Amino acid sequence: MPASRIRLFPLLDRIVSADQAASLVEDGMVVGMSGFTRAGDAKAVPLAMARRAQLDPFKITLVTGASLGKDVDRVLTEAHVLARRMPFQSDPTLRAAINRGEVMFIDQHLSETVEHLRSGQLGPMDYAIIEAAAITEDCGIVPTTSVGNSASFAILAKKLIIEINLGQPAELEGLHDIYIPTKRPTREPIPVVSCDSRIGLSSVQVDPAKIAAIVVTRQSDSPAVLDAPDAETNAIASHLIRFFGREVAEGRLDLSLNPLQAGIGNIANAVLAGLADGPFHSLRMYSEVLQDSTFDLLDTGKLLFASGSSITLSAAYAERIFGDINRYKDRLVLRPQEISNHPEVIRRLGIIAINTALEFDIYGNVNSTHVNGTQMVNGIGGSGDFARNAYLSIFVTKSLAKGGAISSVVPMVSHVDHTEHDVDILVTDVGLADLRELAPRERARAIIANCVHRSYRAQLNNYFERALVLGGHTPHVLGEALSWHLRRQTTGTMMDSANLEEN
Amino acid sequence: MPASRIRLFPLLDRIVSADQAASLVEDGMVVGMSGFTRAGDAKAVPLAMARRAQLDPFKITLVTGASLGKDVDRVLTEAHVLARRMPFQSDPTLRAAINRGEVMFIDQHLSETVEHLRSGQLGPMDYAIIEAAAITEDCGIVPTTSVGNSASFAILAKKLIIEINLGQPAELEGLHDIYIPTKRPTREPIPVVSCDSRIGLSSVQVDPAKIAAIVVTRQSDSPAVLDAPDAETNAIASHLIRFFGREVAEGRLDLSLNPLQAGIGNIANAVLAGLADGPFHSLRMYSEVLQDSTFDLLDTGKLLFASGSSITLSAAYAERIFGDINRYKDRLVLRPQEISNHPEVIRRLGIIAINTALEFDIYGNVNSTHVNGTQMVNGIGGSGDFARNAYLSIFVTKSLAKGGAISSVVPMVSHVDHTEHDVDILVTDVGLADLRELAPRERARAIIANCVHRSYRAQLNNYFERALVLGGHTPHVLGEALSWHLRRQTTGTMMDSANLEEN
Repeated sequence: MPASRIRLFPLLDRIVSADQAASLVEDGMVVGMSGFTRAGDAKAVPLAMARRAQLDPFKITLVTGASLGKDVDRVLTEAHVLARRMPFQSDPTLRAAINRGEVMFIDQHLSETVEHLRSGQLGPMDYAIIEAAAITEDCGIVPTTSVGNSASFAILAKKLIIEINLGQPAELEGLHDIYIPTKRPTREPIPVVSCDSRIGLSSVQVDPAKIAAIVVTRQSDSPAVLDAPDAETNAIASHLIRFFGREVAEGRLDLSLNPLQAGIGNIANAVLAGLADGPFHSLRMYSEVLQDSTFDLLDTGKLLFASGSSITLSAAYAERIFGDINRYKDRLVLRPQEISNHPEVIRRLGIIAINTALEFDIYGNVNSTHVNGTQMVNGIGGSGDFARNAYLSIFVTKSLAKGGAISSVVPMVSHVDHTEHDVDILVTDVGLADLRELAPRERARAIIANCVHRSYRAQLNNYFERALVLGGHTPHVLGEALSWHLRRQTTGTMMDSANLEEN
Repeated sequence: MPASRIRLFPLLDRIVSADQAASLVEDGMVVGMSGFTRAGDAKAVPLAMARRAQLDPFKITLVTGASLGKDVDRVLTEAHVLARRMPFQSDPTLRAAINRGEVMFIDQHLSETVEHLRSGQLGPMDYAIIEAAAITEDCGIVPTTSVGNSASFAILAKKLIIEINLGQPAELEGLHDIYIPTKRPTREPIPVVSCDSRIGLSSVQVDPAKIAAIVVTRQSDSPAVLDAPDAETNAIASHLIRFFGREVAEGRLDLSLNPLQAGIGNIANAVLAGLADGPFHSLRMYSEVLQDSTFDLLDTGKLLFASGSSITLSAAYAERIFGDINRYKDRLVLRPQEISNHPEVIRRLGIIAINTALEFDIYGNVNSTHVNGTQMVNGIGGSGDFARNAYLSIFVTKSLAKGGAISSVVPMVSHVDHTEHDVDILVTDVGLADLRELAPRERARAIIANCVHRSYRAQLNNYFERALVLGGHTPHVLGEALSWHLRRQTTGTMMDSANLEEN
């Protein structure tokens, strides 16, 4: 191992195997792990914990930044190691266990978890297992491709296990900006005043006595898997780009827009690609996850700077970008998710937030998490941190799912993650509804006219017109408000019989 | 009129009658008015506008801080002057017009309205009609018993009408702290770092050329009307005081607690009264509305300082407090509602936020605004600004309404204003549920055990047990989720027939 990776030499004695490190974790412990959207997660010790549990069953509360690489949550779930899990996940095996009620999942705003830990509402945390690119001479832990909650976990946990990952480029050092807010109620303002503000240190300072074990690994992050863009994602992007153009024409924004946040996935990638082609320039991002499209936009020169909490790339992009990270380093910063998602900073910078909805209703309430109001998909993630405090809160989704059996626009969402108060703009492949300063009845007309797929438009309009007869500020036919979800469960489609005949 | 009230003498020429001032407002205009929870509202010109509309019909968009004195919204509604109204109201006549769909009501987080105005998403604003205690030599408008949105309205409106109210004590001058955030995306941190931070000026600086008219009035604010405390409000207060005691015992808070926000009404008053009797001391408030109980707590010496956006008192308290306001002035500050409710400051100070729910469900989602999901009551007000960003987000309500025909704890709320992610503690007269770090199934058991009235407990538990059989992270019997509301509409009570037989 290169000496540059553990520069506080007495720590070399703490290098152990993953199995030895895993044996330190005891039943009932609260364990923090690095990892945010597959990036920078601990890779060896969690799998060793799962192996150990086959012979020596034990259960933990696992707290991370966000989702982990694709095997960790699966393997830990299959080994029955997870009693409790927070604040986000995206693994199919874990998701199924959550929905069976076997794992207690606490679905939190991503900016809030470490506040709860710091104030003693969560924890105490027994171990933090953190992937690092290096440990400095003064016991600074240098994160890898994400910061997530790693800094506060490392500071607040009783003991640390560090995975030094030689597969992560040493050049990541210097990319991170580690700033931890002071204690409440005597906290000072967080001094981020622009996307490129650097306000902290490049590593996480910890007491070397807390480091219980060091494990050396060489494994890359799990690559992001993106579906190819399609007609619908391109249509959504193009509606949104036209909307930005109108905002510029009306003098509310200039061509550099306001700092952008884009949720993870294809639609966000399509929007960023669309920005590359338009008249916009001198763009900046203040986001959570930096994806392939962020680097494309940096390459065009249209994006000047990107702030995030992780870099999550497809395999091809990972090879190219991490092989040449110095080329991008002065235009990037990775921050703790508490800072990338902090309400204070998001409100101050006037962020344009673009996030994906699972479904939304005629009044603009958004469901990001629950199929049929009951089955968890991934969790709210950072969407609430951004949507609530953004200058413009935009939600996007395809108008149809499951080949048309599901309309993403419904009379009433079956679960609310973002209320009408926090949703300014809705976009589907059909079009864009600008809900700003509209009352609920006006919102409904804008959404039905612009967002719902034509195969459901008459059916939705019929619902709304009958609701209007019953009256109210937010008219509903309460006995039918969730009937579309129930019909899908019983008949396989949200379409009512009259509509089915026509379509 | 005392010369001290208009100290920029050329403005004396602009004094006109209320009817003359009202004639300036034209059909289709956007009009801002001072006023926050009945305090400091414009009193003469709005009524003159209503009189004028009888002969000369016209309609406006009316934007205020929050609710107005009890006659203004009623009279304007009856005169059909209101086309659009935002961001809050609490008048029965206006409420009925909103629910009939005659007035388009935009129900907004109270911290956000002036952001929309400043960025051109709302407006432009043609007139601002602002009550003032005085106009200074350098054309500073001195607000009266509220700041609300008055400062930004005065700065951003094209023209101003000032009501100098001689009935408001001249000694209010010096009470206000007027700070306007700089423009986004280049905004600086808001420098409030404690409840007593003073960061601005004592008046709103405007260009004298913008003042189109001055009207002299002498009318007091409408007094707050509080029901007497009863067994239920006292029980809620006592559960909450015991909870604070436990938090202190567990070392998460000390006896000075964190800064307190309390929503308007009897329950908040009962909680503050409870704090006066307990072991707590050196308390501070960072709230919206300062009510009778705030002054009682200041009088005991337990409350050191109170920051708000308005002072709304009962008739007896108003006479006593405003007759002797100098006694309190160094322990009070009134701020723009954008600052009293700012996410940045609320998160920084670690506020304990206590707000009232209309109903909540077994997973902790809160409805603050809509009866049966359709009929607006008042609006979300500042509850979302506080609940989302608080250190502890607490919602309180009586367990029963309408003599037991309504349970405030239901399977699924009919409208969501605060999602499960934003609700830490729920309290009814029955007890307190601590939802922190609990998964939905655990939240449901805590809520059913601690918050629901015994007359509905078996019925709610029956729902939850049947939902568990169907499974999911957030189990529901979707076809019955809103059945309690429907049953109330059709049978007059939420009780099902089995339950009715037993009770």
